[in-house]
Amino acid sequence: MAPDRTVLKVLKGEAVFPPPLWMMRQAGRYLPEYRETRKRAGSFLDLCYNPDLAAEVTLQPIERFGFDASILFSDILVVPHALGRDLRFEEGRGPQMTPITAGEIERLEADTFHVNLEPVYETVRRLRARLPHETTLIGFCGAPWTVATYMIAGHGTPDQAPARLFAYREPQAFGRLLDLLAEQSAQYLIRQVEAGADAVQIFDSWAGVLDQASFDTFCVAPVRKIVERVKAAHPQVPIIGFPKGAGASYAGYREQTGIDGLGLDWTVPLSMATELQRGGAVQGNLDPLRLVAGGRALEEGVEGILQNLGRGPLIFNLGHGIVPETPVAHVETMIDLVRRTGR
Amino acid sequence: MAPDRTVLKVLKGEAVFPPPLWMMRQAGRYLPEYRETRKRAGSFLDLCYNPDLAAEVTLQPIERFGFDASILFSDILVVPHALGRDLRFEEGRGPQMTPITAGEIERLEADTFHVNLEPVYETVRRLRARLPHETTLIGFCGAPWTVATYMIAGHGTPDQAPARLFAYREPQAFGRLLDLLAEQSAQYLIRQVEAGADAVQIFDSWAGVLDQASFDTFCVAPVRKIVERVKAAHPQVPIIGFPKGAGASYAGYREQTGIDGLGLDWTVPLSMATELQRGGAVQGNLDPLRLVAGGRALEEGVEGILQNLGRGPLIFNLGHGIVPETPVAHVETMIDLVRRTGR
Repeated sequence: MAPDRTVLKVLKGEAVFPPPLWMMRQAGRYLPEYRETRKRAGSFLDLCYNPDLAAEVTLQPIERFGFDASILFSDILVVPHALGRDLRFEEGRGPQMTPITAGEIERLEADTFHVNLEPVYETVRRLRARLPHETTLIGFCGAPWTVATYMIAGHGTPDQAPARLFAYREPQAFGRLLDLLAEQSAQYLIRQVEAGADAVQIFDSWAGVLDQASFDTFCVAPVRKIVERVKAAHPQVPIIGFPKGAGASYAGYREQTGIDGLGLDWTVPLSMATELQRGGAVQGNLDPLRLVAGGRALEEGVEGILQNLGRGPLIFNLGHGIVPETPVAHVETMIDLVRRTGR
Repeated sequence: MAPDRTVLKVLKGEAVFPPPLWMMRQAGRYLPEYRETRKRAGSFLDLCYNPDLAAEVTLQPIERFGFDASILFSDILVVPHALGRDLRFEEGRGPQMTPITAGEIERLEADTFHVNLEPVYETVRRLRARLPHETTLIGFCGAPWTVATYMIAGHGTPDQAPARLFAYREPQAFGRLLDLLAEQSAQYLIRQVEAGADAVQIFDSWAGVLDQASFDTFCVAPVRKIVERVKAAHPQVPIIGFPKGAGASYAGYREQTGIDGLGLDWTVPLSMATELQRGGAVQGNLDPLRLVAGGRALEEGVEGILQNLGRGPLIFNLGHGIVPETPVAHVETMIDLVRRTGR
């Protein structure tokens, strides 16, 4: 571990002042330079699999803002894509896949998984070589539940009803799918670490739609399996879990899954966040729309987080990805507020 | 209070075996007799404002299933409609309104509010006269935050971003809108009580998208104001609050708002629900998709709720409205399970 990578220090439980910061989706459409590169890339998926361009967009927000962490530019759905499922991103419609059936789950093939993902590993290698020494490089994957919701519905859905119903009706096939995704996602993260990632994050973006029994089985257990596998191979690499929308189920998630850092969405009350911080590092959790609005809404949001969480191990971040309409000037204001006030 | 209305007993804090039960949206499209009446009604809004037909559909699930409570058939958006905002329901698109501006908020008029809502009060009167004596009649309104999200966006949105941004950018105008909605909603509930409602429920369907500061200001404070007004006029009438998706913010909601019963969505962990039940009655919280799936998924869901909450004050319900594709036979199975197991 590089001793001057502040994000890694925080993930080991140390409080750093001012807190390190980065933003989920920091390489994204709010940046004019991203939009320029995006035009040259063909499809969104072409961009994910092009190490030249994927590294370029990953580095853009680091060059512009000097964030303390850089997150690999990719998408959580490259995992099912590498397992042979079709995937395309349509402008304004998001990801589109052919919904998987119970029979097809039986026949999923992992033979060429790492070959298919080699461009991602190459991107990670180039990034670690080109990033400033003090910048933490974060790899990532989607959590099995969240990835499965897209595989089953074939696209994003407001309440993940297709996957919830599938899980209730076909518990065995659904269990097999989660097992396979957990196994492959763990191998995927391990390869990212071996290519140069300093830490990894597991995104469970749709963790907030399940009842307790389903949350324990579909969210907690597969993430725990991934953590066990990654820790067995690379015990020193910290893992951030982000069960977005988990609400009251945030309590205990760190302990149950074995993750080091806990990503908090913006709806996690700061009173609960301070409790969660007693267990280790927390990351978050500004409402991305406060960043769009700017002004007092932004100041109050940043101040609330720093006042409640700024004395413990905190990685300042948004509570979800930055949205495309965010003014770049507001990002500058936020960074300035965090670095000035959080000292 | 009629001593044999079990829902009222539970709302006063008493445990009843088996627990009384009803379903949110129990008068709805899953019922063939509802679909028949619906065809005769013209638009959805015509149905809401037709005391004959609104009473008819409200009574249908009571006649078929003998639920312990009946909820007025209406829509939360009749309140802004009665304040002069346009409203139409389009098949497959849900409610459509003209988005309100800050200037228009200043000019909202409540002069003809009760005249406009007289058909709803008439429906309540007819219902109380026609319902079995032991059936609790529940009136309702939407919480100001949830109603405001539709007024500002003009329609339903996945994350209520338009209202959140409006609130951040125009805090004064937004505050005035919440104040007015709280005041009028309280008067609306008071009139429902005077027409014969035994209890009322406040639906905050979009309570789950706010950070803590916004939740306290936009959800908790306006609901507290409604509760104060209704309790001042009718101290004996119990009030159920339903801050759907509030997650960790469920803790304290009952005490902060002054409600009697707490409606739990299906994502509230049963371990948290048992804690919340120490403060008084809880209502919920079966995942509506377990009812669609039936079989083991349904049995496990019902059993979990009864085992965890069945010994205290519980009104058995879904964790959200029943969905149209639910088989009627599964509703019968659920009722049988609750009445047999919950004894």
